Amino acid sequence: MTTAVAWMAPVCALIGICMAGYLGSWVLRQDPGPDKMNNISIKIQQGAKAFLMSEYKLLVIFMVIVAVVMAVALSPITALAFVTGGVMSAAAGYVGMHVATRANTRTAYAAEESVAKALNISFKSGLTMGLCVASFALLGLSLWLIAMVFGLAMGVDINAELANLMHTNIGMVEGFATGASAVALFARVGGGIYTKAADVGADLVGKVEAGIPEDDPRNPATIADNVGDNVGDVAGMGADLFESYTGAILAPTILAATFGALGGYFATGDLVWALVTPVIIAGCGIITSIIGLFAVRAKEGAALHKALNRGTYLAAGIEIIVIFCLFYIWSTQSVEAQPLWLFGSVLCGLVAGLAIGKITEYFCSDKYKPVHKIADAADTGAATVIIEGIGTGMLSTIAPIVLVALAIIGAFTFGNMAFPLASAEGGIAVGLFGVGLAATGMLSNTAITIGVDAYGPVADNAGGIAEMAGLPEEVRDRTDALDAVGNTTAAIAKGFAIASAGLSAISLFVSYQATMHHAIPQFELTLTDPLIVAGIFIGAMMPFMFAALTMGAVSRAAHAMVEEVRRQFREIKGIMTYEAEPEYDKCVAISTSSALREMMLPGILAIIVPVAIGCFNPAMLGGFLAGAVATGMLMAIFMSNAGGAWDNAKKYIEQGHHGGKGSEAHKAAVVGDTVGDPFKDTSGPSMNILINLMTIVSLTFAPLFIMIQGIL
Amino acid sequence: MTTAVAWMAPVCALIGICMAGYLGSWVLRQDPGPDKMNNISIKIQQGAKAFLMSEYKLLVIFMVIVAVVMAVALSPITALAFVTGGVMSAAAGYVGMHVATRANTRTAYAAEESVAKALNISFKSGLTMGLCVASFALLGLSLWLIAMVFGLAMGVDINAELANLMHTNIGMVEGFATGASAVALFARVGGGIYTKAADVGADLVGKVEAGIPEDDPRNPATIADNVGDNVGDVAGMGADLFESYTGAILAPTILAATFGALGGYFATGDLVWALVTPVIIAGCGIITSIIGLFAVRAKEGAALHKALNRGTYLAAGIEIIVIFCLFYIWSTQSVEAQPLWLFGSVLCGLVAGLAIGKITEYFCSDKYKPVHKIADAADTGAATVIIEGIGTGMLSTIAPIVLVALAIIGAFTFGNMAFPLASAEGGIAVGLFGVGLAATGMLSNTAITIGVDAYGPVADNAGGIAEMAGLPEEVRDRTDALDAVGNTTAAIAKGFAIASAGLSAISLFVSYQATMHHAIPQFELTLTDPLIVAGIFIGAMMPFMFAALTMGAVSRAAHAMVEEVRRQFREIKGIMTYEAEPEYDKCVAISTSSALREMMLPGILAIIVPVAIGCFNPAMLGGFLAGAVATGMLMAIFMSNAGGAWDNAKKYIEQGHHGGKGSEAHKAAVVGDTVGDPFKDTSGPSMNILINLMTIVSLTFAPLFIMIQGIL
Repeated sequence: MTTAVAWMAPVCALIGICMAGYLGSWVLRQDPGPDKMNNISIKIQQGAKAFLMSEYKLLVIFMVIVAVVMAVALSPITALAFVTGGVMSAAAGYVGMHVATRANTRTAYAAEESVAKALNISFKSGLTMGLCVASFALLGLSLWLIAMVFGLAMGVDINAELANLMHTNIGMVEGFATGASAVALFARVGGGIYTKAADVGADLVGKVEAGIPEDDPRNPATIADNVGDNVGDVAGMGADLFESYTGAILAPTILAATFGALGGYFATGDLVWALVTPVIIAGCGIITSIIGLFAVRAKEGAALHKALNRGTYLAAGIEIIVIFCLFYIWSTQSVEAQPLWLFGSVLCGLVAGLAIGKITEYFCSDKYKPVHKIADAADTGAATVIIEGIGTGMLSTIAPIVLVALAIIGAFTFGNMAFPLASAEGGIAVGLFGVGLAATGMLSNTAITIGVDAYGPVADNAGGIAEMAGLPEEVRDRTDALDAVGNTTAAIAKGFAIASAGLSAISLFVSYQATMHHAIPQFELTLTDPLIVAGIFIGAMMPFMFAALTMGAVSRAAHAMVEEVRRQFREIKGIMTYEAEPEYDKCVAISTSSALREMMLPGILAIIVPVAIGCFNPAMLGGFLAGAVATGMLMAIFMSNAGGAWDNAKKYIEQGHHGGKGSEAHKAAVVGDTVGDPFKDTSGPSMNILINLMTIVSLTFAPLFIMIQGIL
Repeated sequence: MTTAVAWMAPVCALIGICMAGYLGSWVLRQDPGPDKMNNISIKIQQGAKAFLMSEYKLLVIFMVIVAVVMAVALSPITALAFVTGGVMSAAAGYVGMHVATRANTRTAYAAEESVAKALNISFKSGLTMGLCVASFALLGLSLWLIAMVFGLAMGVDINAELANLMHTNIGMVEGFATGASAVALFARVGGGIYTKAADVGADLVGKVEAGIPEDDPRNPATIADNVGDNVGDVAGMGADLFESYTGAILAPTILAATFGALGGYFATGDLVWALVTPVIIAGCGIITSIIGLFAVRAKEGAALHKALNRGTYLAAGIEIIVIFCLFYIWSTQSVEAQPLWLFGSVLCGLVAGLAIGKITEYFCSDKYKPVHKIADAADTGAATVIIEGIGTGMLSTIAPIVLVALAIIGAFTFGNMAFPLASAEGGIAVGLFGVGLAATGMLSNTAITIGVDAYGPVADNAGGIAEMAGLPEEVRDRTDALDAVGNTTAAIAKGFAIASAGLSAISLFVSYQATMHHAIPQFELTLTDPLIVAGIFIGAMMPFMFAALTMGAVSRAAHAMVEEVRRQFREIKGIMTYEAEPEYDKCVAISTSSALREMMLPGILAIIVPVAIGCFNPAMLGGFLAGAVATGMLMAIFMSNAGGAWDNAKKYIEQGHHGGKGSEAHKAAVVGDTVGDPFKDTSGPSMNILINLMTIVSLTFAPLFIMIQGIL
C-alpha cells in the first residue's frame, strides 16, 4: 500500500466535475420557454449575479487582508491554501448559481408539460451544484494533501523528523479549510440576510398591505425575493456544505497526521491507510452520487418523493458497502490494527444523523403533534404561538444533542477497538480518529444530498416565474408539489449536517489541543482551570451574540425594503393596474447593499475573537471552543426547528384547520412564521459554520499562539 | 485565633431573627383598614397559605424520599442536613409570606394617608422576609459547620486523619445546601407557574375579552393573580435567595476544607481563618442590613428611590469596611499568607455585580435605546417586536458573561496572591478560594437586598386591593409609584445574583473535581476526553430543556385558567353588573393544582439527571456541570432581560409613545409582554437555581459515585 492510491480522490473529483459540466450544459440546453418567462429569469440572473459579484469583491478584499496576515504570522503556504479554499468555494457557488438561475424558467416551462420533466431539470440543476461543491472541495483538498502530507508517509518507517514535518505541513493545509469556512460564513450570513430582507419586505407590504398574492409581478420586491432564494438557499447552502464537507474530510486526516505520525502510535502501514482513507471515502461518495442520479427518474403519476429517495438511498447504500470494503481491505493488510471496527464508528455517525433527521421531521412536519400544538396555540393569539414555538424548538434540542453525545462515545469506543495497541499507548486521541471518520462517512454523499436540497429553490423560483408570467394554475401546482417533496430528504440532510458538525468540531478541537501540547508540553486543558472556565463562558456566549447580530441585521434590512416598496406603491402611479412596471432593480440593490453591509460585523467577529483569545491565552481558547461548539449546536437546532415548526403550523392552518386562511388563528400563525424566518434561514444555519470556522481558525493560527507564548 | 469566633455567625443570625420578629409584629400591628379591604387581603392570605401548604405537602413527600435515598447511599447525617436545609428554607418562606400577605392591605390603607407611611410598611414587610431568609440560612449552616467541621481545625496542626475527617464531614454539611436548593427549585418553578398562569389568565379574558381593567373585582382570576404575586415574587424569590446565599457561603468554606486541609496547603492559622471568614462575613451582613434599615426613611415629597438606595448603599458601604477589617486582622496574624489580597477578590465580585446590574438596567429600562427600539418595532407589528426583543435579550448576555469571566480571572489572581506559598504548591485550587469569597461578599447583604426586592409585590398587592375595594385613584397612584421605585435597586440585586451564581458554581465545581480526585487519583477533567465533551453537550442542553418544560407548563396552566374564567363569565349571571360574586376560589384552586402538577417533572429531572450521569461516569458529570453552568447563565440573562425589555416597551408605549394605549403598536407590544411573562418570571429566574442545584447535588452525591467506581 502506498499513498499513491490517494490519487483516486482527485480523479473522482475530476469525474465529478465532468459530470457536473455535462449536467449543467444539459440543463442549459433545455428550452427556457417564451420571452415573457425567460425575461423574468434574466432579471433574476442579473440580480443574483450582481449580488454574488459584489459579495465576491468584498470577499477578495477580506481574503487578501487575511492572507497577508497569515503569510506574515504563519507562512505563505498557509496563506496560499487559504486563498485556494476560498476561491474553490466561491467558484462552486458561482457555477451552481449560474445554472440554478437558468434552470428556473426551464423548470417552469417543462412543468407546463409534465411534472416528471420539471423534476428532471430542477434536480439536475441541483446536482450540478452538488457535484461542483463536492468535486471542487475534494480536488483542492486532496491535491494539497498529496503535495504536502501524503508523500511524507511513503518511507518504510516514519521517523521523528518526518512526523514533525507532516504535522507542520498539515497545519498549512488547514488554511484551505479556513478559507472555505470564511467564505461559507459570509455567503450564509449575507445570503440569509438578503433572502429574508426581500421575503419579509415583499410579504409585509405586498401580501398584508396591498393585498396582492405572493410573487405577483406588481410587487416591486418580487424579483429580489426570487433572487434571494438563489443567493440564500443555493449559493449560501452550497458554501455551507463546501465547508462542512472539507472539515469532515480534514478532521480525521489531521488526527492521523498529528497523533498517528507525531505520537508514533500507528504502524507505518496503518498510518498510510489512516491518512488516505478519508479522501478515498469522499472520492467514492462522488461516484456513488452520480450512480444515484440514474435512479432518480420520476414517472408521471408516481410519487415524486420516492424517486428522490430512491436516488439518495441507493447512493448511500452503495457508499456504505464501499466503506465497508475499504476497511476490510485495510484490515487484511494491517498487522497491528483491526480497522473493521472503524466501520462501527461510521455506523454510529450514520445512525445518529438519520435519527436526528427523523426527529427534525417530527418536530417540524405538519403531520405530527408539535406543529399541531402550535396551530392550537394560534387560537389564543400570537403570544401563545410564539411561546409554544420557542418551547418546541428548545424541546427539539434534547434528542439530537443526546444522539450526538452517544455517537461521539460510540464512534470513539469503536475507534479505540480498531487500534488496540495504539490506544493503550496514545490514550483518547486514537479513538477520536473514529469520531472524525464518522463525520467523513456522514458527509461522503454530499453531492447528491445537495442535489436534493438545491433543487427546492429552483422549483420555488419556477413557481415564482409561473406566477409572474401568468401561466395556468396547474403549472404553479406542479412546481409547488415539486417544492414540497424534497422536504423529508432535506430534513435528513440537515440532521447529517448538524451531527457531522459536532463530530468534526470535536476532532478539530482535540487536534488543537494536541498541536499546542506538542509545542508546549505543559499545555493542558483542565476543566478546573479558571481561565478555561472563563473561556467556556465566553465561547458559549458567542452563538447568542451571533444570533442577535444576524437577527438584528434581518430586521434592519427588511425595514429598508418595506420603506422602498411602500415608496414605489406611493410614487409610481399605475403599478396596481399593471400600467407601470415597478422598479425591481432598486429593491434588488437594497437587499444587496443591506446584506453586504450587515454580514461584515458578525463575520469578522467570528474570526477575530478566537484569534484574540488565543493570543491572550491558548488554554482559554480551548475552553472557548468547547463552550462555543456546545451552545452553537443547541442554537442551530433550536432556531432551525422552531422556525420550521412555525412555518408548517402556518401552512397547516392554511390547509383549512383552525379557520384556515384569513382567520384570526392564521394571523397569529403568520406572526410565528415571520419570527421564524430569520431563525431558520439566517441565524440558525449560520451556527454550524460559526463553530466550524472558529475551530478551524484556532487550529490554523495555533503556530502564532505558540510563537507568542514562546516570547512571553 | 480559634474557631470559637465562628459563634459570631449564629449570634448575628439570632439577632436577625429577633429583628425580623420585631419588624413582622410591627407590621401586623398596623391598621389593616376597613373590612372591605381586609376581607380581600384575607382571601389572598387564604389562597397563598393554601398553595404553600399543598406545596409543602408535596415537598415533604419528596424530601422524605430523597432523605431515605441519601441516608442509605450516603449517610444519615447528610440526610439530616438535607432535611434541615429544606425545612429552614420553607420556614423562611412561610414567615415572609405570612407577613407579606398581611402587609398588603395595611400598605394600601397607609397609602390613603401618605406614601411615606406606605413605603415604611411595605419595606419593613420585605425586610422581615429578608432577615428571615438570611438568618435562618446562616443559623442552620453555621451550626452545622461549627458542629461538624470547625472543631476539627482547633488542633495545633491539622494531620492527615483530621483533614480526611473534615473533608468527609463537610461533604455531609453539603446536604444542607442541597435541601435548600431543592426547595428553592420547586418554590421558584411552582410559584412562577402559579403567578403567570393567573396573570395571563386574568389578562387574556379580563382585559382583552371582557374589557375590564386590571384587578377589577369582577374578574374571577383577580384573587389568584394577587396570590400569585406572593407565592411567586415573595416565597419563590425568598427560597431562591436562600439557596444562592447558602451556596455562596458554603463554596469558599468547602474549598478551604478540601484544599486547605486535605491538600495541606494552608498553615493551620490560615486554615482556621479561611474556614470561618465566610460565615463571619455573612453574619456581619445581617447586622449591616439592620443598620441599613434605619437609613430608609422616606419623607413626604422626597424621592422614594433615594430612601431605598440610601439604605442599601449604607449597608453595602459598612459591609465593605467590615470585610476589609476582617482581612486586615487576618493578615496581621498570618505568617505565610497575605489575606489583604482577598479584598481584591471580593472587590472583583462587587464591581462585576454592580456593572451587571447597570447593564441589566440599560437593556430593560424604558429610558434607554434597547427598549425604545422594541417600541419602534411595534409599529410594524408583533413579529418585529418579538424578533427585536429576542435579539435584545441575546445581545444583553455579552457584557455580563464577559464581566463574570473577568471577575473569575480577577478574583482568582488575587486569591493566588493571597497565598503565595500555597498557590505554588496547590496550583489553581488555592486561588479559587478567592473566587468563592467574592461570591460570599456579593451576597453578604442579602437581607436588605431581599427587603428592597420583596416590598415590590407587597406594593403591587396593595394596589390590587385599592382597586378591588374601590379606593380613590390617588391611592392606586401612590402604590404604583412605590412599586416602580424599587426597580433599579432590584436590577442591581439581580446582577449580584447572576454573578454570584456563576462564581459559586465554579467553586463548587472545582470542589467536585477535588473530591473525586482525592478518592480516585487518576480522575481528571480533561477537555479532550470524549466523555467529557459529550457531558458538556448534554449539560448545555439542560437549561434549554428546563426552559421548554417550564414555558410549556405556564402555557397549559394559563390555558386552564382562561377556560375557567370564560366559564364563570358565561355561567354565573350578574358578574359584570356586580350582582354576583365570581368564584375566586375555583381560580385559586386551578392555579394551585396546575403549578404543583407542572413543577414536578422539571424539578425531579434537575436532580435525577446529574445523579444518573455521575453514577455512569463521574468525569462526564464534570463536563455536564461545566456545560450546564455556562448555558444556564446565558439563558438566565437572555430570558430575564428579554422579558424585562418587552414589559417596559409596553409600558413605554402606554405612556403615550407610538400611539399609546389601544393603538396597533400597543397591541403588538402586549404580545411581546405576554411572551416575556414566562421568560422573566418563570423560566429565567429558575436557571440560577437549576445550575446551583445540579452542582451541589453532584457534590453531595460524590461519595456515591466514588463507591460505584470502586465496585466497577
